[in-house]
Amino acid sequence: MNGWLAIAGLGPGDDRLVTPEVTAIIAQATDIVGYIPYVARIAPRAGLTLHPSDNRVELDRAAHALTLAAQGRRVVVASSGDPGVFAMASALFEALEAGPAHWRDLDIRVLPGITAMLAASARAGAPLGHDFCAINLSDNLKPWSLIEKRLRLAVEADFAMAFYNPRSKARPDGFARALDLLRSLCGDDRPILFARAVSTPQELLQIVPLGAARADMADMRTVVILGSSRTRLIARSRGPILYTPRSALDGPA
Amino acid sequence: MNGWLAIAGLGPGDDRLVTPEVTAIIAQATDIVGYIPYVARIAPRAGLTLHPSDNRVELDRAAHALTLAAQGRRVVVASSGDPGVFAMASALFEALEAGPAHWRDLDIRVLPGITAMLAASARAGAPLGHDFCAINLSDNLKPWSLIEKRLRLAVEADFAMAFYNPRSKARPDGFARALDLLRSLCGDDRPILFARAVSTPQELLQIVPLGAARADMADMRTVVILGSSRTRLIARSRGPILYTPRSALDGPA
Repeated sequence: MNGWLAIAGLGPGDDRLVTPEVTAIIAQATDIVGYIPYVARIAPRAGLTLHPSDNRVELDRAAHALTLAAQGRRVVVASSGDPGVFAMASALFEALEAGPAHWRDLDIRVLPGITAMLAASARAGAPLGHDFCAINLSDNLKPWSLIEKRLRLAVEADFAMAFYNPRSKARPDGFARALDLLRSLCGDDRPILFARAVSTPQELLQIVPLGAARADMADMRTVVILGSSRTRLIARSRGPILYTPRSALDGPA
Repeated sequence: MNGWLAIAGLGPGDDRLVTPEVTAIIAQATDIVGYIPYVARIAPRAGLTLHPSDNRVELDRAAHALTLAAQGRRVVVASSGDPGVFAMASALFEALEAGPAHWRDLDIRVLPGITAMLAASARAGAPLGHDFCAINLSDNLKPWSLIEKRLRLAVEADFAMAFYNPRSKARPDGFARALDLLRSLCGDDRPILFARAVSTPQELLQIVPLGAARADMADMRTVVILGSSRTRLIARSRGPILYTPRSALDGPA
């Protein structure tokens, strides 16, 4: 039996953003494991078993995938975006490290994908065109104090910032506190992008000054990008372009 | 005449990492503009004009592409990786903002791609699986003091870090200084990944403790990823897995 496991990034939603590498591995799989809406993106076919599971069971899902691969199945763990950015790859390796030694002999691959911040950035212009950071605003797995510390340091470093999981029903208040903190540090004029469900029919982009940002502009399907002090808006009749210049030198580059 | 301009990410090198969206836009183009090795990845065909240009002429290249689109051509600016991450998108918008007003009426799109750090992270495991930052180590367009400031703050925030453009012939010393600074802040045991030319026949991955990292392990085709304090190595006969757990809570999650 030659089982294997591939953790594959399906990108932000549009099938035209799925890499040929990922499409090819899905065609070879016997089993697809993943969160319900991601597994729903895979076309059923004879010989392919779909294993959709609920949110917040990442370690169980990872152990299930590893068990199937160890039984000789060809398993794809379907992840949205890129599996290595606030998605399934880390959970899989946590389960691997804690699991039976023979799991370490498995053929395991991670196949990259278009992560939400890159899809959002492309749609808006190039707000991540200079140094930036990516922060998961969920406080399920880290204390809120650490999130605030990172926001303060990221402002001091003058990074553009991409925020994943800004808001959920279980955590309605944290994002409002993050916006208040960022306003106190960056002022009201800094542009901020709310990019919801980019590349899907529900896509919605809003660029507002930080002073006008409200927590309810984000939900679980939104990635948020805050500009650095040098991020610029180009006004156009076609809609604004948000971008961060390459240079951090003062005066003409 | 209905010219347009698309800034398209070709990914790290392997054609299986080029999105179908990018492949489709190239098929519609009349002109490809870009740095020589990226334009060389596009198959010539009747009706397609290739415009390869040298490195370090990004603004001239951007203005050329905008001029062609304004003349009614269908122009693809070929970028490696993702065009919005230390690549051509910001240069294009700098040229647009500084250029004639009628350029703002052009149909301009950015098509995302697999950026080097995500390809490298996937190959090594999931070192960017928790909060992280991306820093361009070239000091062409920013003072070295700002790079050092950002490194210090990124360590204090305990971000994993991806470094683009770590070293070039024109800047042989900066990366060695960066490594010295990082060793003084993080100690010798922190794992660091050197990922060269990922997904190409020249691919080379090295994971070493920071104390054993040497500047000459990197060149212009290398992206470097430094783990956070929580990044782990899983030893395996198949080669180690480098990953950062999702949790930053102490004790059992």
